[in-house]
Amino acid sequence: MISRLLVEYDGTEFGGWARQYDRRTVQAELERALAVVLGRDVALTVAGRTDAGVHAWGQVASYAGEPARVASLNALLPHDISVLGCDAAEPGFDARRDATSRAYCYRLLARRARSAHERGRALHWPREVEQSALEACARALQGTNDFTAFTPTETDHVRFERDVLAAFWRRRSADVLEFWIEADSFMRHMNRVLVGTMLEVAGGRRSLEEFVALLGGRPRAHAGQTAPAHGLYLAGVGYRSQPVLDVPH
Amino acid sequence: MISRLLVEYDGTEFGGWARQYDRRTVQAELERALAVVLGRDVALTVAGRTDAGVHAWGQVASYAGEPARVASLNALLPHDISVLGCDAAEPGFDARRDATSRAYCYRLLARRARSAHERGRALHWPREVEQSALEACARALQGTNDFTAFTPTETDHVRFERDVLAAFWRRRSADVLEFWIEADSFMRHMNRVLVGTMLEVAGGRRSLEEFVALLGGRPRAHAGQTAPAHGLYLAGVGYRSQPVLDVPH
Repeated sequence: MISRLLVEYDGTEFGGWARQYDRRTVQAELERALAVVLGRDVALTVAGRTDAGVHAWGQVASYAGEPARVASLNALLPHDISVLGCDAAEPGFDARRDATSRAYCYRLLARRARSAHERGRALHWPREVEQSALEACARALQGTNDFTAFTPTETDHVRFERDVLAAFWRRRSADVLEFWIEADSFMRHMNRVLVGTMLEVAGGRRSLEEFVALLGGRPRAHAGQTAPAHGLYLAGVGYRSQPVLDVPH
Repeated sequence: MISRLLVEYDGTEFGGWARQYDRRTVQAELERALAVVLGRDVALTVAGRTDAGVHAWGQVASYAGEPARVASLNALLPHDISVLGCDAAEPGFDARRDATSRAYCYRLLARRARSAHERGRALHWPREVEQSALEACARALQGTNDFTAFTPTETDHVRFERDVLAAFWRRRSADVLEFWIEADSFMRHMNRVLVGTMLEVAGGRRSLEEFVALLGGRPRAHAGQTAPAHGLYLAGVGYRSQPVLDVPH
């Protein structure tokens, strides 16, 4: 029997999703709670491995075993992880292999003064930011592109094309801008380098044409900085080709 | 010369706005930072004294003296306070006496599972909540009412009528409901007792008629529980009869 977990977490105090010997990780906390509830060890397979500091609103993981009660899991978990659902999955379900898309959101606090409320939850960006330039970059991302420039040079990936199903910026409030993107899959740091590079375009330090050229496959050094992890959220995971995001019109 | 401060803070780790001998307070932190920047002591007058745990997005305070640089103040303040503006005010300005309205928001996380992201930022309410009942309560609040039932019996107030300029609930996201209210002024705990009592109506444990009857002046014991401080935000302060809230239609 296979079960499916839907999980949210605040990544601030985690060394990321994946188990490590010496750091607090989301996987280790969840596997520990599941072992208590189910009475035996389980190994989680996850749809989107998130790096240290990255948050999740809708992470999906699977394991071999029966579902555990959500209330029991949450009673055993620390405050910065919450299980939203735990159900029996279809036979052979694998949260990672069966995922057909992942959706991420990057939150930007675009104003001069820092915020008492958004610390650790959005990148504070007190510099110039031209929203129309961000939107033009997002439009260029749609479709199949080569993201070699947007992931570290040392990589295990062999294929650098990704299919971007949706990419857009929207203003969440007077001060908060959000970048939303959904693709078949993502490479390490890809969203953070995309945001860092788009911010150069939005600040007038790089042209839209230069940004577009990067999407044809360029060395990592040609793209911009890696934006900090604390602005990034794994928003949701799509299965059976059902997209996560409604694209705004 | 009088100056005006616009401030936001996360109330979680404060014993409220007002100075106390033995607790960390917003007023003490701000006065300490102002004293460093201005080179002498200043005393702040505040528009809305918030209780321990209550947050603010748009608190206003005034002091006798010249404006201080926002960046300097923020460099001296802890992460849970942020100064958004500091400007010269009109002669004789008093943040408290001149305020013509205050607007508050109470945030509710209305779902079964707790949240890794909303802890300390919204009241987790895993029980039944009928949004239409909340909305009917909010409509009943509009206009002038007697809020004797909604403030502690031990009080210095002599007048218990308040003019409610706007009161409405809105769904912020799939799981988050917000109560917005603007009035000429508020009494201690008034918003929190209002929310606690409305939640009884929304859960079927009190009728709308009973709620409406409370607005004619009833003993405190007739109203409901005081909702926790951590869901409450001072959203903004109105001056010269300019309301803070746009009422949705």
